[in-house]
Amino acid sequence: MKDAAAGKRSQLTSKGRAMRERIIQAAADLMFQGGAQQTSLDEVKADAGASKSQLYHYFADKDELLKSVIEFQGRRVIDAEQPELGEIHSIVTLKRWRNKIVRLADAFGRIGGCPIGSLANELSAHDEILREALGLQLDEWARQIEHGLAKIKSNGNLSRDIDPRKLSLTFLTAIQGGLLLAKVSRSTHALEAALDQLIEFVEVQSPGQRQIGR
Amino acid sequence: MKDAAAGKRSQLTSKGRAMRERIIQAAADLMFQGGAQQTSLDEVKADAGASKSQLYHYFADKDELLKSVIEFQGRRVIDAEQPELGEIHSIVTLKRWRNKIVRLADAFGRIGGCPIGSLANELSAHDEILREALGLQLDEWARQIEHGLAKIKSNGNLSRDIDPRKLSLTFLTAIQGGLLLAKVSRSTHALEAALDQLIEFVEVQSPGQRQIGR
Repeated sequence: MKDAAAGKRSQLTSKGRAMRERIIQAAADLMFQGGAQQTSLDEVKADAGASKSQLYHYFADKDELLKSVIEFQGRRVIDAEQPELGEIHSIVTLKRWRNKIVRLADAFGRIGGCPIGSLANELSAHDEILREALGLQLDEWARQIEHGLAKIKSNGNLSRDIDPRKLSLTFLTAIQGGLLLAKVSRSTHALEAALDQLIEFVEVQSPGQRQIGR
Repeated sequence: MKDAAAGKRSQLTSKGRAMRERIIQAAADLMFQGGAQQTSLDEVKADAGASKSQLYHYFADKDELLKSVIEFQGRRVIDAEQPELGEIHSIVTLKRWRNKIVRLADAFGRIGGCPIGSLANELSAHDEILREALGLQLDEWARQIEHGLAKIKSNGNLSRDIDPRKLSLTFLTAIQGGLLLAKVSRSTHALEAALDQLIEFVEVQSPGQRQIGR
């Protein structure tokens, strides 16, 4: 499926690419609001202003569209956290990223939760190819968090006992769980509590903090 | 809806209660496997061995059944963590609870994730009454974690700087996020990393640990 889709994409004209993107975006938005399985191709078609033949020209079936939506939402979530996510190198910049996540959750997550987490919850048991596509997006997110934490460590502000990989997974689970609780409670309270708790733990153990007597 | 349902329940014979429970359990299992919205009342009926009139005798509509399924799964998840969850009073018993969660996730969560978390993800945006029912179950779970953490603190093994409420929400988000990642990766790796990271943080800051020179 992957190679065929990539091959098809490279042959598209710029107009074709724009229509393809419009279909993916319409599907992503509908699915974020109403769930992936509840969203029909007819609704996607109508929202994107595409004809049936256009839709099937770009996507052989709903699973192929779903895979593109997963990639689109994964990129969208990680892009939305920039530049803060990519700039993590100290406790101060870690807190800036925390604030960005909470702002995004406050604006979008209190109803729909995490765009990629919600898809992951809904589709992981449904299809192996989609499950793998979801895993790739979540891995990339964890990798970018880990990269920032490793920079804090190499700058001497993260305890030597802390493994950036393990801590990145802890942050990612806290974000995913926090966004799920945001969806249930319509509040970012638990997300903020979890991120603040993690940052406090990191701070207390920070070599810099120890030097100034904590 | 709540009062009517409770009133109806109190009038049931023991045979009626057993049938009602059988319907709820069949619905819970089908929804855990295939999603709440994808599960039809016809499938529930068939799996429970109930007639259509029995089903509608106990539940006015699918939303009333969903509310009962939420309560059932919330109890089931919290009960499954016993006795370890209720016995938390020290770092050692906290670790025993961690092991129980990982064992449960390994047995059930790698395909379906968290029974209550999956419902929360699917239904929170769908209906206000269901969203509130989901919130009550997650609140009760957090409350029981908090209760254990408060006992660790009153036993002098949790840093005075740590708020058991805030830490309980951090654990709950890590569990929810960890179970979501378990569903995507078919592995408890991220769940274990997050729980271990949190327990390590708690241990490093434990007054007991400090006394013995860490």
